[in-house]
Amino acid sequence: MIIDLTHPLSETIPVYPSKTRFSRKKHDLKNGVCLNDISLSSGIGTHMDAPRHFYAEGNSIDQIPLERFFGPACVLHLSEKVKDNANYSISVEDLHVWEKTHGSIPPKCLFFADTGWDRLWGKNSYCIPSESGGCPYPGFSAEAAKLLVQRKVNIVGIDTLGLDPGCNLEAPAHQILLKEEIPLIECLANLDKIPPKGAMVFALPMNIQGAPEAPVRVVAFIGKKFEDV
Amino acid sequence: MIIDLTHPLSETIPVYPSKTRFSRKKHDLKNGVCLNDISLSSGIGTHMDAPRHFYAEGNSIDQIPLERFFGPACVLHLSEKVKDNANYSISVEDLHVWEKTHGSIPPKCLFFADTGWDRLWGKNSYCIPSESGGCPYPGFSAEAAKLLVQRKVNIVGIDTLGLDPGCNLEAPAHQILLKEEIPLIECLANLDKIPPKGAMVFALPMNIQGAPEAPVRVVAFIGKKFEDV
Repeated sequence: MIIDLTHPLSETIPVYPSKTRFSRKKHDLKNGVCLNDISLSSGIGTHMDAPRHFYAEGNSIDQIPLERFFGPACVLHLSEKVKDNANYSISVEDLHVWEKTHGSIPPKCLFFADTGWDRLWGKNSYCIPSESGGCPYPGFSAEAAKLLVQRKVNIVGIDTLGLDPGCNLEAPAHQILLKEEIPLIECLANLDKIPPKGAMVFALPMNIQGAPEAPVRVVAFIGKKFEDV
Repeated sequence: MIIDLTHPLSETIPVYPSKTRFSRKKHDLKNGVCLNDISLSSGIGTHMDAPRHFYAEGNSIDQIPLERFFGPACVLHLSEKVKDNANYSISVEDLHVWEKTHGSIPPKCLFFADTGWDRLWGKNSYCIPSESGGCPYPGFSAEAAKLLVQRKVNIVGIDTLGLDPGCNLEAPAHQILLKEEIPLIECLANLDKIPPKGAMVFALPMNIQGAPEAPVRVVAFIGKKFEDV
C-alpha cells in the first residue's frame, strides 16, 4: 500500500503569515498544449526546511545529501492527547512513551509527529495569526528536538505549519535540528494512516539551487522492504 | 549508491522557447530567517508531463496514481550513436537491440533514453531555437513510443528538453504515451551513470493541483532491492 503524505498545492492552502501564497496561471499554446506558470514561497504546502533556512552557512536544499531523503518512518500519534490544544508542546516524555512500546528510535529514521492538525487543513483554525506575530499550533519542544539529534534521525516532520509550537517565535527546535544538518518537513498529510513503525518513506524535495526551503513530495510504503542486494 | 537524476533549478537553466523561465528572490525576515519566492513554468528543469499536458480530460499531475512513480530503471545508452546528431530519432530497432542483450522491457519499469544531451546542459547547444519554432534535439519516434505502450512501462524519460525529437512539432510520441496515461520525464541528468538494468528509481513530482506538468525529483538507487515484505 502507498500513501501520499503530501497536500496538493493550490491557491486556497493555509500559508504562514510572512510567506507568499501559491498562484497558478494557465498559459496554453495555440495548438492546445496546456502549460502553467506558478509562483510561490518555496516554503509552503508540504515542504522541507534546509539548514540554510536559519543558518546562512548551512546547506541549501540542493546540498542536502540524498541519503537523508529515505528511511523507515517512526510516527508518534498524538491526536487524542493534543485534541484542540494549539499550545501543545511535544515533550521528551512523549518520545519515551513511544520508545517503551516500539523500542529505541533508530538512527536514519524519519521521525514524524501526527498531532491531528492535518484534519484542519483548509479550515481557518489550521492557522489563526495571533497579535504576537505567531500562529498557534502544536510543535516539538527544544528538549524533544535534542533527543532526536541524539538518536541521529534523518529527518523530523510534523503535520502543522511549523516544527516548533507556533506561539514560540524563537523556534528553538528548528535551530537545534537544522544546526545538526537534520532537515525538517512541515504540513505533512495523512500521518494517521501510517503505523507507528513499519512504513518506508521517501521524501524528495524540488532541487532548487541555493534555496532555504522547497516543496517536497513525501510517499509512504507499507508492506515493502528496501534492502541492500 | 544513490544518484541524482535531477538538474538543480536556477535562473540559467535552458528552457523551451514557449515557456517561462525560473526566477528566485530572497525574502528574508528581520530576525535573519531566510525565505525565497520562486516563479517558473511548471514544465521546466527536470520535470514530469501529465496526460493533461496534451489532453484536457487527462489526469493532471496530482491525479497520477502513486504506483507510477517508482520501479526498476531500463536505460538505453545511445550517446555514442547519437553523438551531435540533433535530429536523431530513437527507433524500434534501438529498443530491440536493448532487448536482445537485456531481455524484454518489463512492465512497470521506468524506461529512460540517455542520448548524451545532458552534457550540453547549460550550453547554448542544448537548445538552439530554429526558424520553424522548434528546437532540435534527439527524441523518441512514434513507433518506439507505441512499443513502450505495448510493454506497459510506468514512465518514459529522456535527457533532452522533450520526449519527441525537437524538430517534430506534432509531438506524436508525447501524444501516444500521454493518451495511455504514461507520464513523461524530460531534462533528466546523469543517465550515463546508471546501468542499462538493475537500478531502482523513485520519481516524485511536486503535487500541484490541476497542473499539466511539474518539477520532479528523480533518484536512482544501485545495489538495492525494493520488495514486498
